Amino acid sequence: MAKLMLALDVLDENKALKIIEEVNDYIDAVKIGYPLVLACGLDVIKKIKDICDKEVIADFKVADIPSTNEKIAKITLKYADGIIVHGFVGEDSVKAVKDVAKNLNKKVIMVTEMSHPGALKFIQPIAEELAEMAKKLEVDAIVVPSTRPQRLKRLKNIANLPIITPGVGAQGGKIEDILNELGEDDYVIVGRAIYQAEDPKNAAKKFKEQIKNI
Amino acid sequence: MAKLMLALDVLDENKALKIIEEVNDYIDAVKIGYPLVLACGLDVIKKIKDICDKEVIADFKVADIPSTNEKIAKITLKYADGIIVHGFVGEDSVKAVKDVAKNLNKKVIMVTEMSHPGALKFIQPIAEELAEMAKKLEVDAIVVPSTRPQRLKRLKNIANLPIITPGVGAQGGKIEDILNELGEDDYVIVGRAIYQAEDPKNAAKKFKEQIKNI
Repeated sequence: MAKLMLALDVLDENKALKIIEEVNDYIDAVKIGYPLVLACGLDVIKKIKDICDKEVIADFKVADIPSTNEKIAKITLKYADGIIVHGFVGEDSVKAVKDVAKNLNKKVIMVTEMSHPGALKFIQPIAEELAEMAKKLEVDAIVVPSTRPQRLKRLKNIANLPIITPGVGAQGGKIEDILNELGEDDYVIVGRAIYQAEDPKNAAKKFKEQIKNI
Repeated sequence: MAKLMLALDVLDENKALKIIEEVNDYIDAVKIGYPLVLACGLDVIKKIKDICDKEVIADFKVADIPSTNEKIAKITLKYADGIIVHGFVGEDSVKAVKDVAKNLNKKVIMVTEMSHPGALKFIQPIAEELAEMAKKLEVDAIVVPSTRPQRLKRLKNIANLPIITPGVGAQGGKIEDILNELGEDDYVIVGRAIYQAEDPKNAAKKFKEQIKNI
């Protein structure tokens, strides 16, 4: 059974922590991004973990030169259990993060494709090369959007790595279209369809059941 | 005469502010990155501006989907005078930042090429397309490394925009090789050769004089 990762893309710490409390029983991991961290500080990760004791992944899409990537990873992985990096900037930049993560026994997850229209121009054409790079560098997982199930399957096959897949819910991805491709090390990411729901707890419960039942 | 931008890539707030005090008379702008902000919070920008009242650019190499880029820009540009974005994620992602910056009368600066070896694989082959995109989107400036003066000239000509150029000093770029290409709206970025110098004030003074005298 695949796991459920909540994309906690809110900007207010109290709201973030309240949602975590509500959905705690139904999620397996939490993904947070720069907007929340810039608003509240990295310390918000500790507060989330105090409530839910789940994996917290920093979706920072790190994309700098190796020495800067290394610094970002060192600070972030003091708090987070994993960090998301771009492969586009090249092997050395990803490796700089991988080396930090390995020392700390944390995860590196690499973007291979993105779901927004602008990604068609430069990222999609090299997505398969990025999946090969992820395999070669032995990162812990790749990011593949759920909005194009055939691409998800293709990139997962190339990388032969666990995936985390955004796009389910508000972005139009349907959980039933992708679940056959997913194993127990893979994560379905749901954001707005949970945290913007009138009843986040119930929304998370439904997604969890959908994952269970297929 | 080109301007001098200090890349303040230190991790400690007190050290950062001390360096700003020392070099204040010789720099025109300050560039900070995620390592310092993750360590100290965005508020460090206010503290820098309280001391030096110079432009502060957030070198966050923003590289996410448009809605996330927008959130990052909104928070960051409350503090910073400009923000650096990646172009490889596509026009819509850059435009999301550009729209926020325009409303706030702040700057967007787009990466067209990077100086580390890994950038040769995916970024350098599209650098000229990125420079064209920067021109089309009317961003305020582009980032072009000083380590390859011919490329700097070529990308500046394509974009027809002001540039900010890292690589002088510790990365091996020589100021005399690029100054002929630079006008008064362009910035030479120097980091370690100033902030790691035994006497940062004197180092900044020398770079400023070099820029003046050629």
